[in-house]
Order: sequence, then C-alpha cells, then structure tokens
Amino acid sequence: MLRILIYNEFLHEKDPACRARDIYPDGIHAELAALFNAQPDLTADTVTLETVNEITRERLRNTDVLVWWGHMAHGDVPEEIAALVQEEVLSGMGAVFLHSAHKAKPFMRLMGTSCSLIWRESDDLERIWVSAPGHPVAQGLGKYFELPAEETYGEPFGIPAPDETVFVGWFTGGEAFRSGCTWQRGNGKVFYFQPGHETYPTYKNADVRKVLLNAVRWAAPVYRCENCMDCPNPPKAHKTGFGE
Amino acid sequence: MLRILIYNEFLHEKDPACRARDIYPDGIHAELAALFNAQPDLTADTVTLETVNEITRERLRNTDVLVWWGHMAHGDVPEEIAALVQEEVLSGMGAVFLHSAHKAKPFMRLMGTSCSLIWRESDDLERIWVSAPGHPVAQGLGKYFELPAEETYGEPFGIPAPDETVFVGWFTGGEAFRSGCTWQRGNGKVFYFQPGHETYPTYKNADVRKVLLNAVRWAAPVYRCENCMDCPNPPKAHKTGFGE
Amino acid sequence: MLRILIYNEFLHEKDPACRARDIYPDGIHAELAALFNAQPDLTADTVTLETVNEITRERLRNTDVLVWWGHMAHGDVPEEIAALVQEEVLSGMGAVFLHSAHKAKPFMRLMGTSCSLIWRESDDLERIWVSAPGHPVAQGLGKYFELPAEETYGEPFGIPAPDETVFVGWFTGGEAFRSGCTWQRGNGKVFYFQPGHETYPTYKNADVRKVLLNAVRWAAPVYRCENCMDCPNPPKAHKTGFGE
Amino acid sequence: MLRILIYNEFLHEKDPACRARDIYPDGIHAELAALFNAQPDLTADTVTLETVNEITRERLRNTDVLVWWGHMAHGDVPEEIAALVQEEVLSGMGAVFLHSAHKAKPFMRLMGTSCSLIWRESDDLERIWVSAPGHPVAQGLGKYFELPAEETYGEPFGIPAPDETVFVGWFTGGEAFRSGCTWQRGNGKVFYFQPGHETYPTYKNADVRKVLLNAVRWAAPVYRCENCMDCPNPPKAHKTGFGE
Repeated sequence: MLRILIYNEFLHEKDPACRARDIYPDGIHAELAALFNAQPDLTADTVTLETVNEITRERLRNTDVLVWWGHMAHGDVPEEIAALVQEEVLSGMGAVFLHSAHKAKPFMRLMGTSCSLIWRESDDLERIWVSAPGHPVAQGLGKYFELPAEETYGEPFGIPAPDETVFVGWFTGGEAFRSGCTWQRGNGKVFYFQPGHETYPTYKNADVRKVLLNAVRWAAPVYRCENCMDCPNPPKAHKTGFGE
Repeated sequence: MLRILIYNEFLHEKDPACRARDIYPDGIHAELAALFNAQPDLTADTVTLETVNEITRERLRNTDVLVWWGHMAHGDVPEEIAALVQEEVLSGMGAVFLHSAHKAKPFMRLMGTSCSLIWRESDDLERIWVSAPGHPVAQGLGKYFELPAEETYGEPFGIPAPDETVFVGWFTGGEAFRSGCTWQRGNGKVFYFQPGHETYPTYKNADVRKVLLNAVRWAAPVYRCENCMDCPNPPKAHKTGFGE
Repeated sequence: MLRILIYNEFLHEKDPACRARDIYPDGIHAELAALFNAQPDLTADTVTLETVNEITRERLRNTDVLVWWGHMAHGDVPEEIAALVQEEVLSGMGAVFLHSAHKAKPFMRLMGTSCSLIWRESDDLERIWVSAPGHPVAQGLGKYFELPAEETYGEPFGIPAPDETVFVGWFTGGEAFRSGCTWQRGNGKVFYFQPGHETYPTYKNADVRKVLLNAVRWAAPVYRCENCMDCPNPPKAHKTGFGE
Repeated sequence: MLRILIYNEFLHEKDPACRARDIYPDGIHAELAALFNAQPDLTADTVTLETVNEITRERLRNTDVLVWWGHMAHGDVPEEIAALVQEEVLSGMGAVFLHSAHKAKPFMRLMGTSCSLIWRESDDLERIWVSAPGHPVAQGLGKYFELPAEETYGEPFGIPAPDETVFVGWFTGGEAFRSGCTWQRGNGKVFYFQPGHETYPTYKNADVRKVLLNAVRWAAPVYRCENCMDCPNPPKAHKTGFGE
C-alpha cells in the first residue's frame, strides 16, 4: 500500500470571489485524495496550510510520496518544514510538485535554482505532448492530450537540466514549456507537472488523472536511509605499500 | 582563426521544381559560408554530396567545427565518412547539425538513438524561445524570435537527454519542440538547431544567423586527442600492501 | 516472467590455455543463465558467437532484457545484428553490458562515443563502492564489496555522462573507474557493469550476482514501440489565427 | 580582467595547534589570491569569516567568479549571505567550491542535496585521474597527478548527477571519489574540486594550481541577468483561431 500525503494550501478554494470554490468546493487536496483513495494500492491523507505543522519528521517517515500544491502562501510554510521535506526526499521519499508549486519552498530547495518561468491567465488551450513515451509517468496516454483552458506557463523555466523531459506543453497564445520533468535527488524521485491552475477543472481531466496516478507510483521509494545528511568517518580499511 | 567546414548535400537547390533554388541559388552551403567568411575570426570552406569524398581524416583534422545540412540523401553519405566524422568529434572537433540533419548519419552515430520526430510542411509560423539565457549559443537574442514560416518539427524527439536545452520551439499548428540542444561527446561539442527548411529563407534571418555564429564559436575545440578510440594498457604504478 | 537473453561470445572458455575454462567450463552464459533461471520471476536463454544469427528481430521482440558479454570477437558480430539490438533497445528492450562489452558493437552504437578506458591484468583487488545507494541496481549491498582479483579498468572512460553513476571501482594498483552506469536510450534502459574478467570467478561472487539480478529486473521494459525509427507526418490539428 | 573574490573562513590557519598555520601563515585565501594575482588576466580579492558581511549584493555584482573554502564554521555564515551567493550564481556569477566547502551553505543551496561523503585523515596519498580530458578545467595536466598526502574523501557523494565528472580521485586507503564535478545552475557555472585539506600544502602543488587557474577562467560569466528570481507576466502575443 503506497502511502501518499497531499499538501494543499487550500486558500483559493475558500475565497468566495474565486472560481476555484465552485470547481473544488472541498479543496484540491480532497479532489486528489479521492482520486488516489479509489485505487486499491494507494492510500492518501491530506494536510493544508492551516494544519501544516502536522508535517513532522515522523509523519514524513510514514509517507511514501508527498504531493504538493501551493501558490499564494508559499512564504507561510515554515522554513523548518521545507527543510524536513527536503531531507526526507533525499532519504528516499518521492515528491510530486504540481503547477504553481514550482515556487514552493521544498521544490526550490531541491532544485537549487530560481524555478522561475513566465505566465499568463487568459484561458489559453494547452496541448501537452509526450516527449518520453517510454517513461512510466507517460503510460496510457496518446501522442498528446489537451486541456481546453489552462494558465499559460512559458520558458525559460529556471530548473537544473531534468533527468527526463516527459512532457512538453504548447499554448495557443504562443508559449511552450517543459511541462513534466523528473529529477533524482539523493534517494528520492522528484516529478514536476505543470497543469493545475485553481480556476480550471484540470484535476478532473481523465488524462491528467492518469499522469497523477502514474506519477505517485513511479515516485515510490526504492530505499530510505537514516541520517542521510551525515558524513561518516570510517577507519582505514586497506593496508597499502606506501611507506607504511 | 576558427576553421569551419560546411557539408550541404546540395540537391534541393538544384531542383528546378523546388523553391529552394530561388532562395539559395548557390546552395545553403554558400549562404552559410558567406555568413562565416564575413567574420574576422572565422574561415569557412564547403563540401557537398558530390564532393563528399573530400571529407578525409586529414581534412577533418584541419577543421575546428563541422556544420552539416542534409535531407534527402542521408543514405548516400558513405558509412566510412560518417564514422570518420564521429571519431573526429570524439577527438575534439565541434559539430553543428542543422534541421533535417537530425537523421544524418554522423548525428545519429553520435546520439545512438532514433533521432525521430514528427513533422509537417504547412507554412506554420515558428516562435523560438530561449530556454537557457546563459548559454553562449543564445547570446544577443531577445526572449524569443520568430520565423514567419518553417517546417513543423514536433515531440517526441528521439534524443538522449541534452546537456542543455537552449531553445524550445512553438508552431502555430500545435507542435512544440526542443529546437536547440547541446551534448558533449568525447572531447567534442555537438549542437543541434532545428530551423532551416530548404523552402524558406531561414538562414537569411538575422536571429538565426546570430545563433549560427554563436554556435560555431561555442563548438570550437578545447583539446584534440590522437587515437581517442584506443584502450591503453599502462603498467602497474603503485606498489600496494596486498600481499605483494 | 521476465524473459532474458544472454549473449556470450564463448571463446575464452573453450581455449585450453585459458583459466576461464576451469572457472566456467560451460561458458559465462551458462553461469548467468543458471543464476537467472533459479529465480521464480526470471527465465533466461542463451546465444553465443557460433549461434549469433539466432539474434533476429523476432527473437529480440520476445526478449525483455538482453545481457551481453564479449571481448576478443566484437568484430565478428555482424553489423546488422548490432543494429537490430540497438533498435530494439530504443524500442524498449533493456540491456545489460558486462565488462569487456564496453567495446561491443551494440553498446558503442547506443553510446555514440569511444567507450575507451585503460586496463591491466595484474590480479589487482577491486573494491566497488556504491555511489547511488537509492538506485534499484544497488539494493541489498553494503557500503562496498570487494573482488579479490579483477582486471583493472581505469578512467578516462569514454562514455556520455551517465544518468546515474551507481558504482565507483577502486583498484590496488592505483586506478579508479565508474564501474556501474545507467543511461536511458529511447524507451530502453541500459546498464554497464565493469566486473567480470574471464579469468576470475567474478560471476560466482555473491554481491556481483545480486547486482546482476537487480540489473535485469531494473532494465525490464516499461513500454515498447513499433517502428521507433520512423518520423511520422501528422496533419495540422489546430486552426490558428495567423492569417488563415 | 576576471574579477575573483575568495572567501576563506580563516580559522585553522590562526590556530597555534594546527599544522595549517605553518603551511598557510597568512591563510589559504592569501595563497590563492597570490596565485590568481600573478596572472595578467586575473584580479583577486579576499574576505574571511570575520569580514563575511562584506559579501553584499553589490560586491557580488562586481565579482565574476567566487572561490569558497570553509570547514568548521559553515554554520556561522549568515543564511542571508548564502542566499545572496546562490542568487548571484543563478544570475551568472561563476563559483568554485573547494574541499570541505562541499558542506558550505551556498554549495548545498545550489545542489539541493545532502552533499555528504565519507572521510578520514590518515595521510593517504591521492591520485587524481582526469576523466574528461576535453574539459577546459583539465587542460595542461597529464593522465593523472598525485598528492603525497590528502584527507580521504569517498563515495557516496550526495550530489545531483554532475554535468561532467572531470576528475576521479583514488586514495591508498581504499576510497574513490568524484573529485572534480561541474554543474550549470541558472546562468552560472559551478565547479567542485575535492583536494585542499588545511593540514597539507595542497594549494602549493603545481597541478592543483593549474586546475584552479583553469577553473576560474572556465567559470567566467557568459551573461548575467537582473532579477533572475522573478516570474514575469507577459501579455498574450498571438491571436489564435481557438474560438477567439
């Protein structure tokens, strides 16, 4: 049973002035949790900004894959929690960062770069091309899939060269973007997936849901270390002939 | 003085039925050679399919950067010459592969992959985004530049993960593509650049010309080895304490 | 059931003057096949240089992971068969190249580089460090394991930068080497593993056997395409506003 | 003129109980500054932990390449200064991290990983192999060079897969290590170089000095952006035919 923890800041969906409230009345995290919990091999739990302090070392040690959605309140996530998430990824926990989480503290810590991009909200259609058809995260999709409206994200995307560029997005307004990227960081696998603006029903899209299911299964830990930040000082093992 | 050798198969431009003849009456190689030879630090020479046998070991040893354009006659380039080019890149010669050279023998040998892509000729406008603004090949450009009409190339592009994705292309018809990519192969630098269909005046475009000038300067050799395919058998250097 | 095909040139083991005959009287392929066939989830078959023509498209299409050992007769493997292997890896078949297969034709085709290294036969002890403890191929090992005697392989190793450097080898005589490396090539996974000189009982070593079992399971195909070398020409999908 | 800024914590060299005092009476930074300042194309200045607050945005904007040596006082470098250094590297400043700076805050921020390793002080000889002979940082060296005594650093080295592994180190006591690694981060180039323990005269070694000179020249900025952390919101450029 793969144990998933979903963090969603859960602010837009409570804002009466925001369309997100109609699309995800219980929050993006509830939408995602329902998707995962309907699978026989997955079990998902959630935290929000209000309960962010529940993200403890122990909680993460009991999490296989962390899924993160944040946007307007990145700055309110305590630095200590961002550091905890980073360390647990390095120790082996998987992590899937969604959409505006490109500027989430744990993602930025894991990348080490600006994670900047250009963006625009103008109801552009997005077409998402599979650029790595052999990657586990891309299985079950066609050559591409489309979202009738998404926030536009565009290059340059300020990331380290990805291990694999799984998706490349195309927007009607003229932008192109590396929309799905993977990185190995320590023992942990990291996946960034661009779609998912809060004012569009992106996480109800059948192809997006396939990608999310693929992604959490792909990010499952292989091995988790203890104290992966340590620098051990082992004794000399080999007697050599250099004047000894 | 950086010594450039341009290979162009020079077939489309001699075909009375092809628009290429009007755009590049002396061939794409002549257009490129004139561009390079107008620079004080560059000197360029050319070969075509007709003279492809002039690509000898000695000629390549006296070449700093090879620029390659081919399309309909990839199969007519002798395997031995493709192997020579590959070896000289591994020894340190730079190589710039243009447009349909994604299926040229030397490029495919250096990549080891299918180098496949999807394509269409329908006069799409292309917008080329700079995705690595710090890369030498992208200097002097804006955020993006546009070509009023180009052949459409689209993902998946069957290449090994590039060292750097310098450009990402967007086409009106719905395609997106990693349009500028770099790879280190042995001691040599390789750059692939997607624009340049023979029926459009792409190589007369000011931004494309900037990219070409940047690319050959970037690809200049740092070090060239002799016999880089060899596996030397050096004697044991260190006496160690393992029962010796 | 993961279907493994083992290629071994099977020459050293038939040479009365070679120690390999005593260590692997039925050939390295028989040793490896027995290892794999003792596992409930694996089934292995073998070919040798003598039967190399059995490596057909159909045979490879029914192979999940190809394991390759070759040394003195790399040149006798037909170019067409090397090309077939390359294409099937690109289509999704896994491939594990062992020891002197660093100069095997299919490996060199997939890398595109010299694959050169330095070497020496002087019974050096090798210590193999795990440098990517989170990688599937490294599971079940300690911090390092040792081989009492191996042929020395040393840097520079003429390969493209690996996706992951899983093992780094240390030899008493003074060499160090990237002894376990992975590359994604098309849809296929490639693993190179340095130990395995024919005159030492390396493939009887418990840790080496763990690595081999891990490697074939890791290299299992995710997706296999048909005609992965093709460049499709799809029709225009999107009507855009650019003067159309 | 390439403007170099050297940070050295300068603590060991003031400790009467430490051999470093005899080797570098004016500090490692003074040794390095003298090396660089003797070159016609380089000019170097220094800061130490005592003057670390001189590392301001303005100072870094006037620095082309930052060289960093730290060990026991990584924790005393203010987080704000580490963040400044990270941002200026992303904007285009080069950075060279030496020896125990693998755990320096700016390096760890740029990598995003544990940067852990194993180590031992037992006067092991180190042999440093050139594994990327074509890299600018490796020019002018032989196949390898040796240091009669160095602190031992060993794998696993907790770094993201390097763009290029330029050096691989071998130690008499049985360790091997990726001793020279490069990464592109944003617009900036990063080089890590393992030798340089404070109790050995490593920075007086002729080959090490060649590497240092190569490294700062290689890391010179190509392009520096303003506000590289920003996410611009450009207007829609292309009118398309999607129901608009």
